[in-house]
Amino acid sequence: MKVALDAMGGDHAPAVNIGGAIQALRLYPKLQHLYLVGEQAALEAECAKQGLDLKDKRVSIVHAPEVIGMAEPGAKTVRKKKQSSISIAMDMVKEGKADAFVSAGNTGAAVAAAILKLRTLKGVDRAGIASALPNEHGQCNILDAGANPEATPEHLVTYAVMGTAYAKHVLGKKNPTVGLMSNGEEDEKGTTFTKETFKRLKETPGINFIGNVEGHDLFERELDIVLCDGFLGNVVLKTAESTAKAVSKWLKSEIKGNLVRMLGAVIAKGAFKALKQKASAESYGGSPLLGVNGVVIIAHGGSTATAVRNAIRVGMETVDHKVNPHIEEALAALAVSKTPAQA
Amino acid sequence: MKVALDAMGGDHAPAVNIGGAIQALRLYPKLQHLYLVGEQAALEAECAKQGLDLKDKRVSIVHAPEVIGMAEPGAKTVRKKKQSSISIAMDMVKEGKADAFVSAGNTGAAVAAAILKLRTLKGVDRAGIASALPNEHGQCNILDAGANPEATPEHLVTYAVMGTAYAKHVLGKKNPTVGLMSNGEEDEKGTTFTKETFKRLKETPGINFIGNVEGHDLFERELDIVLCDGFLGNVVLKTAESTAKAVSKWLKSEIKGNLVRMLGAVIAKGAFKALKQKASAESYGGSPLLGVNGVVIIAHGGSTATAVRNAIRVGMETVDHKVNPHIEEALAALAVSKTPAQA
Repeated sequence: MKVALDAMGGDHAPAVNIGGAIQALRLYPKLQHLYLVGEQAALEAECAKQGLDLKDKRVSIVHAPEVIGMAEPGAKTVRKKKQSSISIAMDMVKEGKADAFVSAGNTGAAVAAAILKLRTLKGVDRAGIASALPNEHGQCNILDAGANPEATPEHLVTYAVMGTAYAKHVLGKKNPTVGLMSNGEEDEKGTTFTKETFKRLKETPGINFIGNVEGHDLFERELDIVLCDGFLGNVVLKTAESTAKAVSKWLKSEIKGNLVRMLGAVIAKGAFKALKQKASAESYGGSPLLGVNGVVIIAHGGSTATAVRNAIRVGMETVDHKVNPHIEEALAALAVSKTPAQA
Repeated sequence: MKVALDAMGGDHAPAVNIGGAIQALRLYPKLQHLYLVGEQAALEAECAKQGLDLKDKRVSIVHAPEVIGMAEPGAKTVRKKKQSSISIAMDMVKEGKADAFVSAGNTGAAVAAAILKLRTLKGVDRAGIASALPNEHGQCNILDAGANPEATPEHLVTYAVMGTAYAKHVLGKKNPTVGLMSNGEEDEKGTTFTKETFKRLKETPGINFIGNVEGHDLFERELDIVLCDGFLGNVVLKTAESTAKAVSKWLKSEIKGNLVRMLGAVIAKGAFKALKQKASAESYGGSPLLGVNGVVIIAHGGSTATAVRNAIRVGMETVDHKVNPHIEEALAALAVSKTPAQA
């Protein structure tokens, strides 16, 4: 298994990327080779600083002189900066030099480069990002979390099939549940768009569609995939993340205002730590961009070294469990099942 | 000031409604009369139980034999159940017998009854609910929080004007900031719909439009009004509420797993209480339905007695500060300012 890592991507690059690389090389024997794609001198310096030995045969730097900034417009910049770490690493996947690409960099650019260079899988019109939220039963994946702000009902049906394949084969769910994000759980809730999507999902064989879902379902229900367009998915993820942060911050500030409470918090600190672990994106690490002809894992821009390491793990598992062939197979079966009805 | 309270509305009716009524009568001397609208026998029994003296000249029961359930379809049920507490109380506002209507009942039904009976203000095509989230600088109001799932850019411009009037005159903000909910803060982020709305808002005089906003802005930024269609607003509110609940629940379960941590939590419990107070919908209590020709306050279905009491307060303040005349005035000014450009 060979992985190409965008070593320059993310808010804390290249430090966390190299830190994540060190962890991955130590923890994952299946990782035969890790390509650190980015600016050679900067990466050599960071490797020296963190003690990553570049004489190790399992790791090497692939020089990419250009960097795509986190705030640059994705598609446009990918076309302009042909020597960026994202472009060069994506080419490596295209040419089969790497089995998976992992990036904590500019999401728009990674998605645009993936579509441009890898193209979509057979039967897929739109790729979608599956991003995990912690849930009482494990994790709940928002799909699409932001690859494409707008979508049609047909796109959401494809997301449902792709998400089902991912949850089955990577997350080990036997019969993954799929919900449609809406403004209420009743069947008749929603917009023209969600109502049409609801109808299509009801008619789609091979998925376990449980109907409309809302806020509390994300955390309490056994819910594997939540479908929405990338605009809504992105807003939901950011809202959840920001709320969790605000709640922790306010609780800490209430505690700090009072010496007795501070003592209590010191005693209870293990609980805060455990919660942080559970609620953190760190342990999921990476969100697969489903639907492209190659394995591309998008990590959070604010990733830590552990998050980068886990994104590499998710990439390896996605390759290992043959998610893309499973998606193509499921979509082909769906196309066959549709034919008689349309005839 | 006379207020009509839907005494049968909400998940915990009529107990919390009568509890809220008792608090409001005690705390707000401006409240000249409170009408408890609902099933006479049930309300008499609850008043007796909680010690609300119906001989008090400031309170009386208005009998409404029908109740609209929380899960019934709003508009349809309002047309069918003409003797429901929502219908009868709304008629009292229409006929001038009450200055404001407060309901923790079926939101769809309250909105439908308001539109049907009160109609919209001059210049308003669509009403919108302004719901508060706690924010480091006070509160951030999501508008529309769910009166209408779908909206046009023009509707969001009207929401901006209405929200500005509300924040100025009820919340006491001098120059309220208005943001557009999007999937990123950059001007070019969003969907076809939000981009068109962004352009219109930029051109609208009399509002302090600060551009696109996202998750963390809701809690950290000095942000008074966040615009979105009712579908998105509803999803954002429910996601934030559910996330806060999940974080607290998980923290408590981590604490309970360990005796030492439990001791710490007992010592620090004031902080948890203070946070609950801050994060709870209770202290905001009610969300005004802006744009209808009358004052209608929508309270959370899960309202406590304190939330009901605060919703009554919001209703009184909305009447007192003449929000509706201010909205009509602002929209008239906007129409005048538009005329030369269109000519």
